[in-house]
Amino acid sequence: MQLGLIGLGKMGGNMRDRLRSAGHEVVGYDPRPEVTDVDSLASLAAALTAPRVVWVMVPSGDATRGTVQALADVLEPGDLVIDGGNSRYTDDGPNAALLDAKGIGYLDCGVSGGIWGKDNGYGLMAGGSAEHVEMAMPIFDALRPEGPREEGFAHAGPVGAGHFSKMVHNGIEYGLMQAYAEGFELLSAVDLVTDVPAVLQAWSRGTVVRSWLLDLLVLALKDDASLSRLDDYVDDSGEGRWTIEEAITHAVPLPVISAALFARFASRQDSSPAMRAVAALRQQFGGHAVRAAAGPSGTPGEHAGPSSGTGSTQS
Amino acid sequence: MQLGLIGLGKMGGNMRDRLRSAGHEVVGYDPRPEVTDVDSLASLAAALTAPRVVWVMVPSGDATRGTVQALADVLEPGDLVIDGGNSRYTDDGPNAALLDAKGIGYLDCGVSGGIWGKDNGYGLMAGGSAEHVEMAMPIFDALRPEGPREEGFAHAGPVGAGHFSKMVHNGIEYGLMQAYAEGFELLSAVDLVTDVPAVLQAWSRGTVVRSWLLDLLVLALKDDASLSRLDDYVDDSGEGRWTIEEAITHAVPLPVISAALFARFASRQDSSPAMRAVAALRQQFGGHAVRAAAGPSGTPGEHAGPSSGTGSTQS
Amino acid sequence: MQLGLIGLGKMGGNMRDRLRSAGHEVVGYDPRPEVTDVDSLASLAAALTAPRVVWVMVPSGDATRGTVQALADVLEPGDLVIDGGNSRYTDDGPNAALLDAKGIGYLDCGVSGGIWGKDNGYGLMAGGSAEHVEMAMPIFDALRPEGPREEGFAHAGPVGAGHFSKMVHNGIEYGLMQAYAEGFELLSAVDLVTDVPAVLQAWSRGTVVRSWLLDLLVLALKDDASLSRLDDYVDDSGEGRWTIEEAITHAVPLPVISAALFARFASRQDSSPAMRAVAALRQQFGGHAVRAAAGPSGTPGEHAGPSSGTGSTQS
Amino acid sequence: MQLGLIGLGKMGGNMRDRLRSAGHEVVGYDPRPEVTDVDSLASLAAALTAPRVVWVMVPSGDATRGTVQALADVLEPGDLVIDGGNSRYTDDGPNAALLDAKGIGYLDCGVSGGIWGKDNGYGLMAGGSAEHVEMAMPIFDALRPEGPREEGFAHAGPVGAGHFSKMVHNGIEYGLMQAYAEGFELLSAVDLVTDVPAVLQAWSRGTVVRSWLLDLLVLALKDDASLSRLDDYVDDSGEGRWTIEEAITHAVPLPVISAALFARFASRQDSSPAMRAVAALRQQFGGHAVRAAAGPSGTPGEHAGPSSGTGSTQS
Repeated sequence: MQLGLIGLGKMGGNMRDRLRSAGHEVVGYDPRPEVTDVDSLASLAAALTAPRVVWVMVPSGDATRGTVQALADVLEPGDLVIDGGNSRYTDDGPNAALLDAKGIGYLDCGVSGGIWGKDNGYGLMAGGSAEHVEMAMPIFDALRPEGPREEGFAHAGPVGAGHFSKMVHNGIEYGLMQAYAEGFELLSAVDLVTDVPAVLQAWSRGTVVRSWLLDLLVLALKDDASLSRLDDYVDDSGEGRWTIEEAITHAVPLPVISAALFARFASRQDSSPAMRAVAALRQQFGGHAVRAAAGPSGTPGEHAGPSSGTGSTQS
Repeated sequence: MQLGLIGLGKMGGNMRDRLRSAGHEVVGYDPRPEVTDVDSLASLAAALTAPRVVWVMVPSGDATRGTVQALADVLEPGDLVIDGGNSRYTDDGPNAALLDAKGIGYLDCGVSGGIWGKDNGYGLMAGGSAEHVEMAMPIFDALRPEGPREEGFAHAGPVGAGHFSKMVHNGIEYGLMQAYAEGFELLSAVDLVTDVPAVLQAWSRGTVVRSWLLDLLVLALKDDASLSRLDDYVDDSGEGRWTIEEAITHAVPLPVISAALFARFASRQDSSPAMRAVAALRQQFGGHAVRAAAGPSGTPGEHAGPSSGTGSTQS
Repeated sequence: MQLGLIGLGKMGGNMRDRLRSAGHEVVGYDPRPEVTDVDSLASLAAALTAPRVVWVMVPSGDATRGTVQALADVLEPGDLVIDGGNSRYTDDGPNAALLDAKGIGYLDCGVSGGIWGKDNGYGLMAGGSAEHVEMAMPIFDALRPEGPREEGFAHAGPVGAGHFSKMVHNGIEYGLMQAYAEGFELLSAVDLVTDVPAVLQAWSRGTVVRSWLLDLLVLALKDDASLSRLDDYVDDSGEGRWTIEEAITHAVPLPVISAALFARFASRQDSSPAMRAVAALRQQFGGHAVRAAAGPSGTPGEHAGPSSGTGSTQS
Repeated sequence: MQLGLIGLGKMGGNMRDRLRSAGHEVVGYDPRPEVTDVDSLASLAAALTAPRVVWVMVPSGDATRGTVQALADVLEPGDLVIDGGNSRYTDDGPNAALLDAKGIGYLDCGVSGGIWGKDNGYGLMAGGSAEHVEMAMPIFDALRPEGPREEGFAHAGPVGAGHFSKMVHNGIEYGLMQAYAEGFELLSAVDLVTDVPAVLQAWSRGTVVRSWLLDLLVLALKDDASLSRLDDYVDDSGEGRWTIEEAITHAVPLPVISAALFARFASRQDSSPAMRAVAALRQQFGGHAVRAAAGPSGTPGEHAGPSSGTGSTQS
């Protein structure tokens, strides 16, 4: 079938390739001339036969909202817009309402798979009406991995349910990654385990912890057995944060997912104000030695506290 | 080749079946007459041709130590004992030394795969000398999943490294399980997602969070879509605890794995003394309403605090 | 000086008493006839000489917003409104703007001290202009504890800074309470410590952990040495949640405060869906025994899994 | 009364001063000639009239064990040894047994108060027999703060209970410090709060979070309003670790205290292997930009990943 696809970055570009390989006719739009198929959204609309299906794959927030508004102007009643980006699910209701006022349908669809999805297929979670899901099903079938449909696609619920599910998926992802990472660190902390990459690779089959993320970690360790070429600075995207916010709204305890998010926050700090406060307290009550901050010349900080003497020091 | 196998419970029994299917000759011993092949460890030793390889698959701690001691008496120089149970790695050194005094070799081997290992194969992590690993390799090859050896077996290091690796494997496992569980709870907490089992199943292929544990959760949800037939009481075995203890010894931060362990502890409490203390504090400083403990008749506790009036209540 | 005081609940009523004891003239309004001094906000405005200072002490959210709107109609340019309730700091800007359009000033003031503040005084954190803070200083001085002003009052910054500070204060409070509570539980878990209440009381003076919260816990233990008369159900008010939300917005890691909040969420669950999911996973991969949910008759659940046999059970 | 005091470091030296101020006769021993009163333990024993009371205030572990062993040789039946250091409570039983074999009594006593105890008095938690506690009571009374005895001293239980209580005290202390520290960081993260030190000082009286640790943090901020002169490197002593280990032994969930301990571990890492692993995973699945580790010249690492293009990037 025909599909309009807006946003041809890492994800959108790969999806265009996968859809074309499956025999679909994809008209892609991107502001970058070197990748786009048409020069405007109006041209994209003109290139498709009604009823049109248009997939939006642009950054969440303003970019997605702006694209939906622009589509409301160039599409026609009976057309369908799918937001496949990482939008917050609370954006879906307003987007759907805006389009509905023009008779245009709306689906939100969480998409997982990263850069590997082009070849492996993407896991998909859609929110919206059964009618709209049906209308887009050939696209979903081409994007999802081979195998039973239900193992790569779910109609999660009404509008918003797809992005909500994707948000939770990413929250889980944070927890999984941190669990493997902590285990890697503990294995690496002891001399006893002489071949950490081999141990992780041996978990690839048969074990309880086997997973695709583990496979990726094994891959990364092939290049750099102690990962010493990487900085320990870890970004986060919005979805981990939103997961915690939703948990708070619904009073759901998420100790593991929140710990994973906070570990990322901490990883990005050159100096933790909180830990400086703890150091200050220890110095105050116990005369515990603390380190002065490193000077501007980058020399390591020295212990700034009183010497500890030979006796017992305690709180 | 020949193998003596001690302990024919869920794990050992399955392993005997898998090894025999692979063409190995297994002589099994278990105190339960209905499953054992021989009536004593002495008979087991007599039934094997030297140099013998004997795999111990009994509960960790006293049972394993007792078995190793007994084997020291019935085996001969040149034989090899493999502890495949969930022993703490600190037991391996003493066990190896005890056997070495008799000229008997020792390997520790972490085994993962649960009840599914019989058919899927087991992930294996061995500790000991290269010579002993080589001696037992036909057994390892039969127990591990098909595919490249390194994806189901690792020689992790000297004696103890196998069990240390398995301990960390289980610590990771705790974190992974809790991450999925938290996501399941959040999905279940909102009306928006109308088909939670379908969402988890859709993650089975293509997504970043796909894994064998996810597959098992999907299986469990097929029977009981909200898991309402289960109690929320979760046991732990020793390895999650040891993982935290080792992390403390080596000053490795494990926020996620520890949170997963503590969630299990909390799941087993009928009433949390800590949370009663928090309730007591709130009542003390703010006159906040609290619940009285349920009476012996099982009637739900009532709010025992002062009524809150119409005004603002705050700390 | 004169003060209008709206909201005469536990906090507002006590504050009226404290202010009157200090010689101030307080005109209180509350919808409950038995406690109010005047019958309407208009009467309250009429009873005060301009420029008026009116303190709002009602529940946060709609009640506070409604009160501010009503005051905009009955007050005059040059008057001053102080929101002393537990409002979210993001409400302060709109409230201030609404009043500013009428020439009326606005301060937000976090108030801490609970039911003990009547006698001990309240810790105060104000946000707004220096001019408005000056105008209300006699009230602040009467409400705060005796001693140096700066030990019971701070001008924290512009509008919103008072409530933001109070929010963080309450987040800290959650962490402190949970820390004592966890310690109490660990002390109570061992037979070795035969007099837990005495140990906590001995911490009252001289120790590093001495605090007012500790004093309150000692008080609570005098009545109920194991707190067995309390349920372990702990509510939370909005401010702990907002603290985590702000931390997420600003990428500040709050492992302790979030853990304290999540412990409260968990305390209120009769059955944790997350822990049921962990139980389900253990049953799936290892055949581990799990408990069936308790039946409707309230009989305790029984272990529903397969028996574990005599052999080693492991993942 | 007379007291032998072994170990005249920061704690022991202050305690000698406090005891002498209270009129007690203290004979101190320390290997440093400039502070000691006698030149050997034998001289110390000779300088005291039987039945002697000797307080040991040396580092926990080998130093304390060695001192107890040495005292067993120079003391006599009827004498009493008190270990006031930060020993693990599991050391107390063996120490008591060693001395008991010579007819010498033993108490363990947790001591809290830091360098401020000299003037403020120390909070004390003792373990041992009532008879031995009675024998040392004049010393306890002089060391503890003025006021009711029970607010600065507890007989916590039999031998070991004093050190167990002190261990839990320190665990709580970790949680309290981290809670304040997290709040300090969040306050400092927003421009809205223009005077963070003033806010913390305003919490000194009347508020729910008032405490001695808060007072110390206020003191520290007087010197260095953003604590920018300190490094965020925080040591830990043994007792926080032991607290978690005991919690694991007794299946007590300690989410807050463990989070506080792990935050200290993380504070000491120049580069976190776990967070490098998370970064590696993000790079693998999503082509997310990561930072290369800083080179040896100390230049900041650069983003090593592929550029993100204009399209949506997601997992």
